Amino acid sequence: MAMKKFINDPNDLVSELLEGYTLAYSDKVALEEGNLVVRPVAKDAGKVGVVTLGGSGHEPGLSGFVGHGLLDISVPGEVFAAPSAPRCLQAIKRADRGAGVLLIVLNHEGDVLSAGIALEMAEAEGINVKRLLTSDDISSAPRSDPENRRGMVGCLPVFKVTGAAAEQGRSLEDVYKVGKRLERNMATLSVAVTPATHPETGEAMFALGDDEMEIGTGQHGEAGKSKGPLASADETAETMLNFLLEDLDVQAGEDLLVIVNGTGATTLMEQFVIYRKVHQLLQSKEINPARSLIGDYITVQEQGGFMLFIARMDDELLALWDASCDSPYLTVR
Amino acid sequence: MAMKKFINDPNDLVSELLEGYTLAYSDKVALEEGNLVVRPVAKDAGKVGVVTLGGSGHEPGLSGFVGHGLLDISVPGEVFAAPSAPRCLQAIKRADRGAGVLLIVLNHEGDVLSAGIALEMAEAEGINVKRLLTSDDISSAPRSDPENRRGMVGCLPVFKVTGAAAEQGRSLEDVYKVGKRLERNMATLSVAVTPATHPETGEAMFALGDDEMEIGTGQHGEAGKSKGPLASADETAETMLNFLLEDLDVQAGEDLLVIVNGTGATTLMEQFVIYRKVHQLLQSKEINPARSLIGDYITVQEQGGFMLFIARMDDELLALWDASCDSPYLTVR
Repeated sequence: MAMKKFINDPNDLVSELLEGYTLAYSDKVALEEGNLVVRPVAKDAGKVGVVTLGGSGHEPGLSGFVGHGLLDISVPGEVFAAPSAPRCLQAIKRADRGAGVLLIVLNHEGDVLSAGIALEMAEAEGINVKRLLTSDDISSAPRSDPENRRGMVGCLPVFKVTGAAAEQGRSLEDVYKVGKRLERNMATLSVAVTPATHPETGEAMFALGDDEMEIGTGQHGEAGKSKGPLASADETAETMLNFLLEDLDVQAGEDLLVIVNGTGATTLMEQFVIYRKVHQLLQSKEINPARSLIGDYITVQEQGGFMLFIARMDDELLALWDASCDSPYLTVR
Repeated sequence: MAMKKFINDPNDLVSELLEGYTLAYSDKVALEEGNLVVRPVAKDAGKVGVVTLGGSGHEPGLSGFVGHGLLDISVPGEVFAAPSAPRCLQAIKRADRGAGVLLIVLNHEGDVLSAGIALEMAEAEGINVKRLLTSDDISSAPRSDPENRRGMVGCLPVFKVTGAAAEQGRSLEDVYKVGKRLERNMATLSVAVTPATHPETGEAMFALGDDEMEIGTGQHGEAGKSKGPLASADETAETMLNFLLEDLDVQAGEDLLVIVNGTGATTLMEQFVIYRKVHQLLQSKEINPARSLIGDYITVQEQGGFMLFIARMDDELLALWDASCDSPYLTVR
């Protein structure tokens, strides 16, 4: 079947989507030279800047979360491709308000490479910058090998807690530590049922049988751990939650943040049904689903499926999660 | 192809999705006996209650918008089916805080019928209730025949401005008037490229050729006005915007609210590209895109396509649109 997407020349796709996004939300975000998505008014001097980078095609991620209490700058790449190091450097320099910059990098090879070069160049220019790598996908490597775990939807709560800590005026070291603590206590697992088509090539990004689902897929069509017959919502939720609880070694009495993140064509209706079972299972294990978020935050084009995310929370992380923020696609009052 | 949805027994779908939704957002919404979605703490006595009703399957609509500055109660029906009159009556009675109730009804036959019976019964019990019908779909009937125009995504801004007015303590007559003024100045047109499957039957809700799109479809698979070859984002945006501007007779110098509402599988990326062209076209006509909102608010399962909505705004409507609100799927800080 032909690709059915509302686009124009694929070569203009990223610049057009960024233009449309920033025109629509011009009270909250602006497009800086070099296609950086920034706040229209920079954060107060003396506060830590929070920057991320990553390929386009995952909207509203990542640029949808630029705003008060969240990111200062997002550096979007082309579709599913990392932005260049010079553009990352430009973002770091612009985000530095005298207190240094936290650079949040989802663990994907191209992003890590660009971020690494930009970080060295920024340090050479005397900027205090720390890199925080997110590697929450439990299917891509064991917990003991974070370097080989992909970064998934876990970036979002890391943006949230570090953004809130930065807004409070904490030091770069403090902001990094709180983000790192969350990062070491989170886990994501995805499932796919229908493929995305790449908006620039029109090609399906993987193949699945008519009655199959695949657990453990990445967010760019990367193969998962296991294909199997499509299961019910309750069975799928239980299978995935058990893998996550085991990975994080969650114990009764602990507080969790739970995110069900739709990747595209899976309805919010289905995500609610999945969450219901997750909530019930946690309660039956005397684990507390203390906070939750359901919706399409980091998408893979129109891919059918979702990511299930959990994080072990403490009082400080919960307070930072609850702090007010204001971005086009995540607002807490 | 088999339906690939994460559900359990289709007979339990609506109760399970409502349970999951209200468990996930238990700080903001609660499930009342009879599956009414309510605020956990009722609004202050002496303020007008705002209630809506409608079939499930359009998540986050309609129950996603229950909260401060928005709805007091949503009465969800089964998938694509109106709730019963007794349940609507129960909602009206519960929402009455002594200042009367505004009942917002999307113009669909079943909803109008249930609402009408409930309204008569409520009046017989001495409750002051007014019905506000939304009929924004310009493809289903001419402007002169609102009784035959379907209610589409226009319900959302009507919830927003009437919810804000009610929160300010205005009278039922005032809240109704402001909602009615918006309603008479809004217009929606939809386009579909891929069908939704009905989650209870597994059947595709309409058929389209591999390279076809259809303008003017309803939100339950109702046929549109014209099938044609899939056009570019810019061409599609221009065609649809021109129909809307003509319907509303928009003049240079006027302020518009613009909503691009994805119906399911169409990415936010594409919606941004569509919005870009709409914004540019309005500016070229010296019409002001004063406010905008982009995302999946009223969906049609995983249907590919979107609705384009415009409304003529005045200063009071803009202020009510900008007022703070707090619901799971629309928050203004």
